[in-house]
Amino acid sequence: MHLLRLTKPDGRALILYARQPLSSNLDAPSPNPTPLNPNSHLRWHPLRGEWVAYAGQRQHRTFLPPPEYNPLAPSRDPDNPTEVPEGPWDVAVFENLFPTLTPLAHDPPHTIVETRPGKGACEVVVFTQDATASLGALPLWHLELLLEVWAQRYEELGARDDVQYVFPFENRGVEVGVTLHHPHGQIYAYPFVPPIAMRELAGQRAYFDAHGRGLLEDHLRAEERDGSQRFLYTGDHVIALVPACARYPYEVWIAPRRGAPSLVDLTRDERADFARALKTVLLKYDGLWRRPFPYIMVFHQAPTDGQAHPEAHVHIEFYPPYRMPNRLKFLAGSETGAGVFTADTVPDDKAAELRAVEVSLA
Amino acid sequence: MHLLRLTKPDGRALILYARQPLSSNLDAPSPNPTPLNPNSHLRWHPLRGEWVAYAGQRQHRTFLPPPEYNPLAPSRDPDNPTEVPEGPWDVAVFENLFPTLTPLAHDPPHTIVETRPGKGACEVVVFTQDATASLGALPLWHLELLLEVWAQRYEELGARDDVQYVFPFENRGVEVGVTLHHPHGQIYAYPFVPPIAMRELAGQRAYFDAHGRGLLEDHLRAEERDGSQRFLYTGDHVIALVPACARYPYEVWIAPRRGAPSLVDLTRDERADFARALKTVLLKYDGLWRRPFPYIMVFHQAPTDGQAHPEAHVHIEFYPPYRMPNRLKFLAGSETGAGVFTADTVPDDKAAELRAVEVSLA
Repeated sequence: MHLLRLTKPDGRALILYARQPLSSNLDAPSPNPTPLNPNSHLRWHPLRGEWVAYAGQRQHRTFLPPPEYNPLAPSRDPDNPTEVPEGPWDVAVFENLFPTLTPLAHDPPHTIVETRPGKGACEVVVFTQDATASLGALPLWHLELLLEVWAQRYEELGARDDVQYVFPFENRGVEVGVTLHHPHGQIYAYPFVPPIAMRELAGQRAYFDAHGRGLLEDHLRAEERDGSQRFLYTGDHVIALVPACARYPYEVWIAPRRGAPSLVDLTRDERADFARALKTVLLKYDGLWRRPFPYIMVFHQAPTDGQAHPEAHVHIEFYPPYRMPNRLKFLAGSETGAGVFTADTVPDDKAAELRAVEVSLA
Repeated sequence: MHLLRLTKPDGRALILYARQPLSSNLDAPSPNPTPLNPNSHLRWHPLRGEWVAYAGQRQHRTFLPPPEYNPLAPSRDPDNPTEVPEGPWDVAVFENLFPTLTPLAHDPPHTIVETRPGKGACEVVVFTQDATASLGALPLWHLELLLEVWAQRYEELGARDDVQYVFPFENRGVEVGVTLHHPHGQIYAYPFVPPIAMRELAGQRAYFDAHGRGLLEDHLRAEERDGSQRFLYTGDHVIALVPACARYPYEVWIAPRRGAPSLVDLTRDERADFARALKTVLLKYDGLWRRPFPYIMVFHQAPTDGQAHPEAHVHIEFYPPYRMPNRLKFLAGSETGAGVFTADTVPDDKAAELRAVEVSLA
């Protein structure tokens, strides 16, 4: 993998990634002409015991592109620069124009709860130059490269003093709030270990301390011993499945069999297998109803808080919003107010639907 | 408050509540002609450390009412019975026809994770006979009665061995998944203390142990000392506000000033003040954009797990899905995958919008 670091005229970083070496004369465009001074702050929610991020400047966005204008497409019109240049790059990463978290956060307001600057980072990951593609449509080599990019971002962002957790994700589809259809994801780098990661890690740590093995590793073994009819992909190194305890009807996990703490710890073979698992799941999703399948896709991996995390086990969780064609699974009172997911279907039935979708990785 | 207990022909309980005594010759109709044997089960999610509820029978619903048929309206056509009878009742509570939790839960399947019957209860609370009303449109005496109903359900359900947490809520609006517009709420009675309640209580317990005072009580005092511009209602006993740490843009809390653990612990005066606070908030919501304002409304109160909970402080939390007119706040990657809420606005600005809406309780 080759990368080229550039700085936009407004001060934001842009990194271009490619299989082939990139010439250093590539441009770093920005739709924003003026230097940025983004700000945000965090407030402590004493009842829930968690941080809430406020980025007021996001509501004062000065930049409103015309609907036909795609800020993630290569920049061709000098009068309407986009976020990425023309050139032979494969994946691009840049700092979000309206970040929720930013290394520049400063002067938090005084409030009656604990308040601090919203340090950290919010990056946009452009998966491809092709606005009409999708993550699942990318060739395997491209997905492998993207996994390397996510690993590189984990390493670089995680090394920063103001970053304790690196969180890559993709929101896909208008159903989960996306308005920009060019294939892209985001990375949030939090200045704390976020609550869901904290909860998962606490359970994993307790299990690891008690058994000397990883909780997710053992769970995956139990799924296999069960002769699982919930597997969507079983590679030498990586598996994908609808877990026995799925909360969303079409929830899917992708994980290496081995408890690698983060994407950085994957070997080349594991990464290649992870790409095959990812492409398989994405093609099954889109094949299920023969239309783009919306989802939230998140990575959970080890914090970058300076501690060792042998209990962590990098994996993807997919949260698709549908429970059947044209029927959304709403997160209502029980889910949002009590934290108890309620399902009308069992994971085995939903897995059977996805298993029946034939896909070809060729 | 007077109540009348009835049993539907399919075995489900129906309780009618009224200010006036109810004659015992009222009917208990049901749209379902045959005895019910509902079932559900819980599976333990080892990574998140929480229970997930599966009620497979909900997908095999045999009863599909015609669209013009309202199962929550008083039953007038013997050929199409509804869930509630004609008669002078004010509020009705009955067991959900397709419960996610039920005292009859039995024979959970074998799975690779810990699995148990989905014991507990799911009740429907019909707020009024008037299908065109709304919670905020009800007169104060009616809201006071409803608070008594919720308290009575807390006491009765909470006394059951299979119930550790009683959770009344209302989902309002198609935006949060509601398809039935007759004013109604639900009560879930869980056989465990749910994760969000657990987290809130853990923080409250630690604070109570350290300070000998309630966390929410002290938080409310701090809000008042702040000369809060975020208050929507300040009564002698109860206040309503957009908290300084709101996660949803229009999030509102209603709480007694005193740390009463549950609705049962409210005095008559506190209940009357709670009704005024509730009506104020609801009228402000509907007045904001002059249209019905969707929300999820939940009660958090003390568990009914046989332990004392001096740290608990009953309150309502509203989670409205909008961040501005016609713009939903989507819960995407950061919220659902990391548990970190991100806001484009600060609570003070949203509170100012709601404060500007004039309402009359008369």
